[in-house]
Amino acid sequence: MAPSASAGSGIDMPVVGVIGAGQLARMMQPAAIGLGARLRVLAARADESAAQVIPDVVIGRHDDPAAVRAFARGCDVVTFDHEHVPTEILDLLIEDGVPVRPGAGALIHAQDKAVMRERLSALGVPCPDWRRVAGSGEVAAFAADTGGWPVILKATRGGYDGKGVWRVEDAEEAARVTDGAAVRGVELIAERFVPFERELSAQVARSPYGQAVAYPVVETVQRDGVCREVYAPAPGLSAGRAAEAQRIALTIAKELDVTGMLAVELFQSADGSLTVNELAMRPHNSGHWTIDGAVTSQFENHLRAVLDLPLGAPTPHAPVAVMANVLGLDLSDVYRAYLHCMARDPGLKIHMYGKAVKAGRKIGHVTVLGTDLGDCVERARHAAAYLRGEIDE
Amino acid sequence: MAPSASAGSGIDMPVVGVIGAGQLARMMQPAAIGLGARLRVLAARADESAAQVIPDVVIGRHDDPAAVRAFARGCDVVTFDHEHVPTEILDLLIEDGVPVRPGAGALIHAQDKAVMRERLSALGVPCPDWRRVAGSGEVAAFAADTGGWPVILKATRGGYDGKGVWRVEDAEEAARVTDGAAVRGVELIAERFVPFERELSAQVARSPYGQAVAYPVVETVQRDGVCREVYAPAPGLSAGRAAEAQRIALTIAKELDVTGMLAVELFQSADGSLTVNELAMRPHNSGHWTIDGAVTSQFENHLRAVLDLPLGAPTPHAPVAVMANVLGLDLSDVYRAYLHCMARDPGLKIHMYGKAVKAGRKIGHVTVLGTDLGDCVERARHAAAYLRGEIDE
Repeated sequence: MAPSASAGSGIDMPVVGVIGAGQLARMMQPAAIGLGARLRVLAARADESAAQVIPDVVIGRHDDPAAVRAFARGCDVVTFDHEHVPTEILDLLIEDGVPVRPGAGALIHAQDKAVMRERLSALGVPCPDWRRVAGSGEVAAFAADTGGWPVILKATRGGYDGKGVWRVEDAEEAARVTDGAAVRGVELIAERFVPFERELSAQVARSPYGQAVAYPVVETVQRDGVCREVYAPAPGLSAGRAAEAQRIALTIAKELDVTGMLAVELFQSADGSLTVNELAMRPHNSGHWTIDGAVTSQFENHLRAVLDLPLGAPTPHAPVAVMANVLGLDLSDVYRAYLHCMARDPGLKIHMYGKAVKAGRKIGHVTVLGTDLGDCVERARHAAAYLRGEIDE
Repeated sequence: MAPSASAGSGIDMPVVGVIGAGQLARMMQPAAIGLGARLRVLAARADESAAQVIPDVVIGRHDDPAAVRAFARGCDVVTFDHEHVPTEILDLLIEDGVPVRPGAGALIHAQDKAVMRERLSALGVPCPDWRRVAGSGEVAAFAADTGGWPVILKATRGGYDGKGVWRVEDAEEAARVTDGAAVRGVELIAERFVPFERELSAQVARSPYGQAVAYPVVETVQRDGVCREVYAPAPGLSAGRAAEAQRIALTIAKELDVTGMLAVELFQSADGSLTVNELAMRPHNSGHWTIDGAVTSQFENHLRAVLDLPLGAPTPHAPVAVMANVLGLDLSDVYRAYLHCMARDPGLKIHMYGKAVKAGRKIGHVTVLGTDLGDCVERARHAAAYLRGEIDE
């Protein structure tokens, strides 16, 4: 990749454009600083998380073709903080000669759940039974064909009323969702409910050259649909299942031609079997532990992949890493909270995103490394609870 | 520390002003991003290393009282990328109500070698024999009193012709230095030459509250007066000597009331004994390995100390870390060099500073972690040589 002339003085290094200025773009900046790569970020507002820490900020909307094209001019390659850029806009960037990584052909699978399910099913990747559905009658037929209620309904794209996934117990509940979706022009798929025991995440990085590396498979702990904690590696996961999860992720990355980081969210059932739940084609919450806990963080490997550089070792620094998200609640004085948390645990790694506190919003995370899972969970959970103002001792 | 109102939107966190925009300020930015602290940097030019990666840049000279005062307005605390800010200017900041860390009373010991030697001698810290000298006759008298030639002459501040340290073998050579210094108004001290076997560095962080942490003592390898490699921990250093070096550094930090990082550069003689060579009151080249190799990097602990937060664990991630500086030579295409180095060694950690290539200038560094010193040295040395264009395979 030839660096653009706009790279500025000093050693010329490529300029990586990042569409979206949330915490994922923010956490790319330390990796970029190390590599000497220059980030340029497209932010909706000047005070967004990443815009606070990256000098080269362009204000504009990710769904405005003119804004995105103007932003991409002078970038050597464009990547993403989120998956919401319409593929038509990405096609325009390709026409303009700016590489987009991951490309539209891959990204569509992270944007449209029906497209994703079709493709993964064709690849033989384990998915729940699924079907496109339009009305509650089709949902009932799906339930009858696949083992009964409950059924999971998902908007193929976006969603409405702030939700994109619904668990429905009968035809009446299904009708409320399908009616609401029909009014808003939202397409739905039905999925068979998977009675999983726990959720896992398999992350891989893949470069345009085709090199890939797999991170240790982790367990993700959700509450109210939000990831709260991540345990790396997934406790008690057999070597065989871990390899199976990594193979699934590597297969998807290769077959979908993903470039950059890919997270495959998996259900693990009581019998140990794995089912793919969701895909994310970017650095992912389940990999935040790698900043402090692995030789190469997911953010560095994302940038290396986007720049078509050889990938870095995903080797963990410690036998156990635990990450806990800090969800906004009532943090009036972060400095005072730091005094307590840092004094209590000198090994604690705090990452705050510079975001205004809003209930339930991810405003930061903490990571601890160690040898004992229970100890690490206690430390991370305490710090996250303290930092959100949930406890005061 | 109450955050300033200028901290911007989101969670209010303190603004840390950094005077100087070299690679040390640049490498503070990843730590600041994690902590959610805001850096504001005083840069001489807009394209300096740190100014490339920190949005809040003020252009001005570090020795211009008005520029520094204007810069410090709105900072919650001020610290440094280098030790060259005149203490009179720091006194003005204190008058303006802006805390300066480390303070002028500490910093003077890193600015003036005579003041440093006087203080350390009074503290009983092991130093070479030394004396203020004005002419070659005084140097010859010093040599006669302390074991003969050679003698080391040092400018107490700054230096001239790009040099501040001279080794002189006789009175005639001494005269050339003392005459040159006299013409330029440079004061000198003479130090007895220490026939050291190797050089060590003991780094500690200390907060205004008085908490301190000591990093593992490292060996530094110099060539032509420039640090080339750092081995962490110092190979073969006995536990007793390591503790002695750490005690020396902790004593100096406490007695001089240092806040932030302190590096104590030491000579180790054939009999194992230690002598203090130099002090640096800021993150230091000998601690760059901590970015990738320790739970808390020297940059994060510097910021935590400057913010009077509890300090983080200095625990290393691996038994051995080796850092090699990349000195500018003939690096025409850093991207191509990355392809080679990253493919050869997936565990290699590269840090480039965005600086224009100039012979002998530190333009980056690499770090490798492992268990075998010889293996780590080979890996780091190869990458540093390749990145400076010295080898091509």
